[in-house]
Amino acid sequence: MNSDMGEGVGLHEFGNDEQLMRIIDVANVACGYHAGDPDVMNRTVELAAEHGVAVGAHPGLPDPVGFGRRRMVLRPEEVESIILYQTGALTAFLSKHGLELNHIKPHGALYGMLAGDEDLMEAAAGTAKLFGVPFFGLAGTAHETVCKSMGVDFIPELYVDLNYGPGGELLIQRRPAPTNPDAAADRVRKALDGGPVLAVDGTELDITFGSICVHSDAPNSVDVATAVRSVLNAR
Amino acid sequence: MNSDMGEGVGLHEFGNDEQLMRIIDVANVACGYHAGDPDVMNRTVELAAEHGVAVGAHPGLPDPVGFGRRRMVLRPEEVESIILYQTGALTAFLSKHGLELNHIKPHGALYGMLAGDEDLMEAAAGTAKLFGVPFFGLAGTAHETVCKSMGVDFIPELYVDLNYGPGGELLIQRRPAPTNPDAAADRVRKALDGGPVLAVDGTELDITFGSICVHSDAPNSVDVATAVRSVLNAR
Amino acid sequence: MNSDMGEGVGLHEFGNDEQLMRIIDVANVACGYHAGDPDVMNRTVELAAEHGVAVGAHPGLPDPVGFGRRRMVLRPEEVESIILYQTGALTAFLSKHGLELNHIKPHGALYGMLAGDEDLMEAAAGTAKLFGVPFFGLAGTAHETVCKSMGVDFIPELYVDLNYGPGGELLIQRRPAPTNPDAAADRVRKALDGGPVLAVDGTELDITFGSICVHSDAPNSVDVATAVRSVLNAR
Amino acid sequence: MNSDMGEGVGLHEFGNDEQLMRIIDVANVACGYHAGDPDVMNRTVELAAEHGVAVGAHPGLPDPVGFGRRRMVLRPEEVESIILYQTGALTAFLSKHGLELNHIKPHGALYGMLAGDEDLMEAAAGTAKLFGVPFFGLAGTAHETVCKSMGVDFIPELYVDLNYGPGGELLIQRRPAPTNPDAAADRVRKALDGGPVLAVDGTELDITFGSICVHSDAPNSVDVATAVRSVLNAR
Repeated sequence: MNSDMGEGVGLHEFGNDEQLMRIIDVANVACGYHAGDPDVMNRTVELAAEHGVAVGAHPGLPDPVGFGRRRMVLRPEEVESIILYQTGALTAFLSKHGLELNHIKPHGALYGMLAGDEDLMEAAAGTAKLFGVPFFGLAGTAHETVCKSMGVDFIPELYVDLNYGPGGELLIQRRPAPTNPDAAADRVRKALDGGPVLAVDGTELDITFGSICVHSDAPNSVDVATAVRSVLNAR
Repeated sequence: MNSDMGEGVGLHEFGNDEQLMRIIDVANVACGYHAGDPDVMNRTVELAAEHGVAVGAHPGLPDPVGFGRRRMVLRPEEVESIILYQTGALTAFLSKHGLELNHIKPHGALYGMLAGDEDLMEAAAGTAKLFGVPFFGLAGTAHETVCKSMGVDFIPELYVDLNYGPGGELLIQRRPAPTNPDAAADRVRKALDGGPVLAVDGTELDITFGSICVHSDAPNSVDVATAVRSVLNAR
Repeated sequence: MNSDMGEGVGLHEFGNDEQLMRIIDVANVACGYHAGDPDVMNRTVELAAEHGVAVGAHPGLPDPVGFGRRRMVLRPEEVESIILYQTGALTAFLSKHGLELNHIKPHGALYGMLAGDEDLMEAAAGTAKLFGVPFFGLAGTAHETVCKSMGVDFIPELYVDLNYGPGGELLIQRRPAPTNPDAAADRVRKALDGGPVLAVDGTELDITFGSICVHSDAPNSVDVATAVRSVLNAR
Repeated sequence: MNSDMGEGVGLHEFGNDEQLMRIIDVANVACGYHAGDPDVMNRTVELAAEHGVAVGAHPGLPDPVGFGRRRMVLRPEEVESIILYQTGALTAFLSKHGLELNHIKPHGALYGMLAGDEDLMEAAAGTAKLFGVPFFGLAGTAHETVCKSMGVDFIPELYVDLNYGPGGELLIQRRPAPTNPDAAADRVRKALDGGPVLAVDGTELDITFGSICVHSDAPNSVDVATAVRSVLNAR
């Protein structure tokens, strides 16, 4: 189970990091572009180290006001540079706290841009290759196809607090709505049994996954994570 | 001979990087806070690699409008975090271009803040220790004393295009004035012979140095660097 | 009674604006530097207009990570420019919502910098004069003396949720602690009766005031504002 | 003749403002988002006032690294807010230097986004209406149709240093190439006589215009502006 962490900025707190760190396995730590700042990164990595949580980079678009959820037209080399910059920055804090980089998982609109554009995704996959870590993404999209063609480890994700469109695409919201913890647990239980995930229109989707993402910024994210953890522990 | 490089931002070019890279030995590359951006960093590190120039981090204050030349009241842990963040970011580009981090040399007001405050300087020296690289600074200041007490390699600098105050402190200007290349060469020649450097009031200063800094943003910085290079080549 | 409002940024909410707008008379609206963004400003001014709350500008230092609470060394002309910029930006939203600028009250470290430096304060007072509005500040400091010498209306403030030093100076904290609502009400009651305010060391201070400031970012700011309102209503 | 001005940031200079101010009639002044900062805005408005040049707002996207030339997916209310913010900020400097706002002309990618999206353009036209000034834009696009339907004065522009596509759309470049001053003068001469402007593929375009735009950031922008001025003076 992975969750986005460290998305506060200065005095602006965000999410339920302290509680979620006790529940999750892997933290995707914001790197100062869509959210996070050097002090927040330092505290977040320290917190992860204390709880034995693995840490990956969660690079975003340079748009703090839009929280990295507004698409920008970037060139592949620009995508590469902003991921290198943010991931490199994170590695310094990992080194300080005795951790190693676990993976790269882009944030928000950047995640979606890469899912649908092979040129951009090649630039992103190249950064995962440089750091020697897997890329977390969405099965059946350019995330997966490009990683496979470039020999980059790919970990597909199951989302429990976002809706899927009929083609398996994620319906990303600017502000997340609360998720029913029972529904989230139910989705995980069925998916672990190889059953389908329902899209918003009822389409049955076959989602391959190696990690489960729980967002930290939903109001009841701790309840959702706890419900998912119960399912996982029961296996 | 070292010089600050990569201080453009987006379409805003700055300094004479292309020409200076042919003359200098070591580049202090801006890391996106006072100047520089991920694309500029990528091109600058690539340029350094092409010319066999070693690359150090040149972290600054988070103040692009002030070009990192306006002091800010920061806590030691904040100084540590902004240096870790910027230096870490640079190491990703170094890794991409097959280079290793050579040193850390803070920029502008941060450089001056560290020279005069042992608590802040301890935070900065700790980052150099973490990265296992030397710190470039000013002999006779907290730069030197803290590095020595913490076991961090210290490389003292001689400045050829800034004036010294009577106590050996640097008189940093917001916008650099042109420097007479002959005067710069003369200062280097005398200093190499163990002679004094004159402060603005005529005080004779004994400057210990292991590297010579030439600023890239003075209008005639290429001429100054060429003059200094001639002196060095003649030894 | 005045309170700082609109200090969220993007998805990062801050303070208890919705509830406080029902209690206060005057809102100091953040202008996008230390906090706030154009969308937050628009919503905050709209909210103030709905509740009949007068709106002043709350310009801060260009330091979102430090929330404008870290001093920076600025020149008077730079202080003038950042106040003009931010206040001008706010006036567009006031115009949209049918309001006029009520006053200027600088934020955080800028407020403190102006209290202690007449040159900087002259630059700030000049902006209040240009907009034809009063300046909110601290009696007995450069805020007051410069406004008086320049013919700018000056409204001195009483703070109910910050401690005063023995010289009457405010002890600004990076993160505010909760304030006892009864203590706040008591301070206001005594001050309205012409009694002294106690400094942290017990010194009796004679604070002249024309407005009472309640911070919005303390955890229980609504309770504090409600307690102060009760005292005011009882007069 | 209008030109974009004030696009420097801090120590980073940009364009040939000093020389162009002697030649142009109207300056579109950057407002701190894609470029410009409060000090640069102050100096630019002062320079315009000295040369009797009228000043309009040149608001851009919040993307300094991309110089506002990378499209972002914004909602109409976000477009409205960023134009209000930037234009309002500029009016403070106009007021200081005794000028009034002349017009609004969006910058770069924002200009192009508005040309092709009526919802976004309605938000932008509403800001021109609020300030009571005309909107500078491209004839035959949403710039014109929305202004007309909303009763906002519309001033169509002729570009002399950008190529037109076969449909009359502008081909905006990230970094401008030099323009042949004679070709620019020739385009203006023919257009003033009611003749066609040639698109890149030779299509004859009938461009209605009320103002001629010369970019300041091309290497030879002063020569281009001088050539255009000669044509205008000869009429």
